[in-house]
Amino acid sequence: MLPYKTLIPLDRQSATLLSTQIANTLIRLIRQGILAANTKLPGSRAMAGLLDIHRKTVIAAFDELTAQGWLVQRPAQGTFVSSELPEVAPRQLREQPAPAGLAVKTGYAFRIREQLALPVLKNTDKLMFDDGFPDVRLAPTEQLARNYRSVLRRSFQQRLLGYADTNGDLFFRQQLARYLHDSRGIPAAPEHIFTTRGSVMAIYLLARILLQPDDVVVVGKPNYRSANLIFAERGARLIQLPVDAHGLDVDALEEQCRQQPVRMVFVTPHHHHPTTVTLSAERRIRLLQLAEHYGFVVLEDDYDYDFHYAGSPILPLASADAAGMVVYIGSFTKSIAPAFRVGYVVAPPNLIEALGYYRRIIDRQGDTVLEQAIAEMLAGDDIQRHLKKARKIYHQRRDTFCELLRERLGDAVSFTVPDGGLAVWTRFDDSIDLSTLAAGCLKQGLIIGNGRFYQPDEPVVHHTRLGFASSTPEEMERGTRIIQKVLATLVP
Amino acid sequence: MLPYKTLIPLDRQSATLLSTQIANTLIRLIRQGILAANTKLPGSRAMAGLLDIHRKTVIAAFDELTAQGWLVQRPAQGTFVSSELPEVAPRQLREQPAPAGLAVKTGYAFRIREQLALPVLKNTDKLMFDDGFPDVRLAPTEQLARNYRSVLRRSFQQRLLGYADTNGDLFFRQQLARYLHDSRGIPAAPEHIFTTRGSVMAIYLLARILLQPDDVVVVGKPNYRSANLIFAERGARLIQLPVDAHGLDVDALEEQCRQQPVRMVFVTPHHHHPTTVTLSAERRIRLLQLAEHYGFVVLEDDYDYDFHYAGSPILPLASADAAGMVVYIGSFTKSIAPAFRVGYVVAPPNLIEALGYYRRIIDRQGDTVLEQAIAEMLAGDDIQRHLKKARKIYHQRRDTFCELLRERLGDAVSFTVPDGGLAVWTRFDDSIDLSTLAAGCLKQGLIIGNGRFYQPDEPVVHHTRLGFASSTPEEMERGTRIIQKVLATLVP
Repeated sequence: MLPYKTLIPLDRQSATLLSTQIANTLIRLIRQGILAANTKLPGSRAMAGLLDIHRKTVIAAFDELTAQGWLVQRPAQGTFVSSELPEVAPRQLREQPAPAGLAVKTGYAFRIREQLALPVLKNTDKLMFDDGFPDVRLAPTEQLARNYRSVLRRSFQQRLLGYADTNGDLFFRQQLARYLHDSRGIPAAPEHIFTTRGSVMAIYLLARILLQPDDVVVVGKPNYRSANLIFAERGARLIQLPVDAHGLDVDALEEQCRQQPVRMVFVTPHHHHPTTVTLSAERRIRLLQLAEHYGFVVLEDDYDYDFHYAGSPILPLASADAAGMVVYIGSFTKSIAPAFRVGYVVAPPNLIEALGYYRRIIDRQGDTVLEQAIAEMLAGDDIQRHLKKARKIYHQRRDTFCELLRERLGDAVSFTVPDGGLAVWTRFDDSIDLSTLAAGCLKQGLIIGNGRFYQPDEPVVHHTRLGFASSTPEEMERGTRIIQKVLATLVP
Repeated sequence: MLPYKTLIPLDRQSATLLSTQIANTLIRLIRQGILAANTKLPGSRAMAGLLDIHRKTVIAAFDELTAQGWLVQRPAQGTFVSSELPEVAPRQLREQPAPAGLAVKTGYAFRIREQLALPVLKNTDKLMFDDGFPDVRLAPTEQLARNYRSVLRRSFQQRLLGYADTNGDLFFRQQLARYLHDSRGIPAAPEHIFTTRGSVMAIYLLARILLQPDDVVVVGKPNYRSANLIFAERGARLIQLPVDAHGLDVDALEEQCRQQPVRMVFVTPHHHHPTTVTLSAERRIRLLQLAEHYGFVVLEDDYDYDFHYAGSPILPLASADAAGMVVYIGSFTKSIAPAFRVGYVVAPPNLIEALGYYRRIIDRQGDTVLEQAIAEMLAGDDIQRHLKKARKIYHQRRDTFCELLRERLGDAVSFTVPDGGLAVWTRFDDSIDLSTLAAGCLKQGLIIGNGRFYQPDEPVVHHTRLGFASSTPEEMERGTRIIQKVLATLVP
């Protein structure tokens, strides 16, 4: 007889009924071929004795398995594994003991576009000059948690906890409309707003809806890498145009428009990713005019509008778009914290409707509870207050960081002090290999990017982005000292 | 002189600096052509008087706009709108006042696959026999809110609030691995688990990674509609095979496999959506054998494993998959509430890695805080306890509902009592037009589906799904009485 006591471990603390545990285990044993077809099982009394449980529990399990067709009960003979089950053919299944784990590799092949296979930057508790992350230690988490709980407390309505509006919670969209109007002059109504998980989802959905394979998409060179990945995955043809001190070269864009139909222009006017340059007012207007004239979509990703230090930020393109050419993207990733995944698209209602249809098949709906919690923070001007405070701190950190870079790294690095944003676009001296530098820093406990992420196609990379917002002055001191130290070892 | 007092409204309660408000408004006026190139502005003193503010505030705004190139200050002449701005050409922009709102329609055309343009079922506070939603009034929200807050309280680490692991929080994956093992015999380790927002995102990602256009995907007829939409959007060829009382017809599947390469078979074995049928143990084993033999992927969407009333549920296919042919999908949508969007994929690590690469471009990461809050509920067996309670309640509701259907609707409706799940698959008498019935019920305050959603291609629809889990016995009483009443008006 098989060692049933060992084969059928029971967990008396589990919420799962004992009879269910027995039945589940027997099924697995049958599937694995350990209990072959026509095997006779011990009688219910004997089995109960073996497992030290009540006989009724065994009978319940046997009855259930009989009903399901795994076992047959032959009168006066006993209980058997059904013979009508097909042979569990593969030999290895039968000879092996119960698999300790799942397969380590799929039993079939598949391919993923090579360029998607990228390492992803994560926050850590280590010292890091990142891509331009906000300092989550400043985030108003206590208040958010309070709101979250209070939303849940009065959310006995099905509406809030159930399947909800794919376009986003209405109260959130109302508050966001007010906020967008007051903070950046965009005259949006709730029906112009679509809620996403963040700007990446927004760009993805828009690429799926607005682009067809081989459509021309114009971007800066360099450009926000995730956007490039999304457009390439859609099968679009990427045209990369120069970015100078005033942003995307609109003359070059007009030239392109004359040569071939351009379907979309992707811009991060405020501030360009990764170089941090602000698109000038003049070029913004030209861009709008070109869009109207040539009929292309302007995709305006305004990911760090809130952080501008050189006086007043320039209003977004969307604020002056009467012709419906601009699709505006924003998110709370930088203004609260990346963990709270709420972003949005502002666009004419016919596009909002299409976004809802497509979003339905990639992510049924957003997080209604979180959206309501954030909406309450918008309604009470709490986010506005938080941003005012954060902007002041980041402004100081920018100044401190730029000073440290100049003092400590001297001629080894050059950069323009950014008017806004959370990072500095640095250029290291030609003699310095950025990968070696980054590796050296990592050994000393500082994480920095080697710049390759931003310029995947350049033969040699001299630029990288160094984020300052998430580091305190003391952390910047330590970090820049590490770069200084590693640089000293690199210079011959 | 222009009416600056009216053109530049100031909000003294706003968190935005007054100088910023002035600058933003002036930019908008310039963009809209209300302030044309070379227009002379009032002096700072005059403007301050007009707007009733301090002169320094006006100077700050003018200086900022000068720095940005919107204005020029000519010594001894005053401040002018820059002449180097291009003419804001389109006439309608100049003649119109400030646009009161954004465009109502995009300035360009686009198309979306027609079949995606579907109405989406939502929870409401109205009486509804839905698609099989859980009763969110039973959800352990108080505890979830407590956990959420406590996670946030001790989350001063960058790790939790910042950019996180695209594959999902490690603690969550550890607890989920234990839960999957204990509750359904799947020997998953954390590296076999990928966290999503729910099963829809899981299916979408898998379709993108595993399918190529024209790949053959076998599904039941009828089938979970969202899955069909996703496969069609991917360009796959859908083969719909019959579903009988034991689930998908595996003989027909084998026949298909002999005729052409099948890339994927999508199943909801436990219980089939929408018919609620359980895939028999025998067919599960045959399906695994066919997968190994013909090399197709089995996509097992186990969306309602937790709710089985006819004794022990049959273990998932994934529990017996030694060859890496099965991809398993689950979610907490039904087991907690749809608002808490956490789902998962269980698969070999090479596929998990690819899922991470692709997810990065549709939704950077999940909700780490929510994942941790749920992980704590798994660790404390709280979800298990909740499920035990909910299962008991839903079991009773199923019985009550089936009894009411029989009693009240008699011969007008036929159905098999489902072994599990949250809905009954009903067939109404041929003489009844389901759309008329649904419309009549809606007028009386009851929402039911007309069945078209589940059988989009059938010329006439007689089946629909009636969810019972989200209604109390009293609500079922009222609801079935409404159906009864409306039916009486339909019978000639």
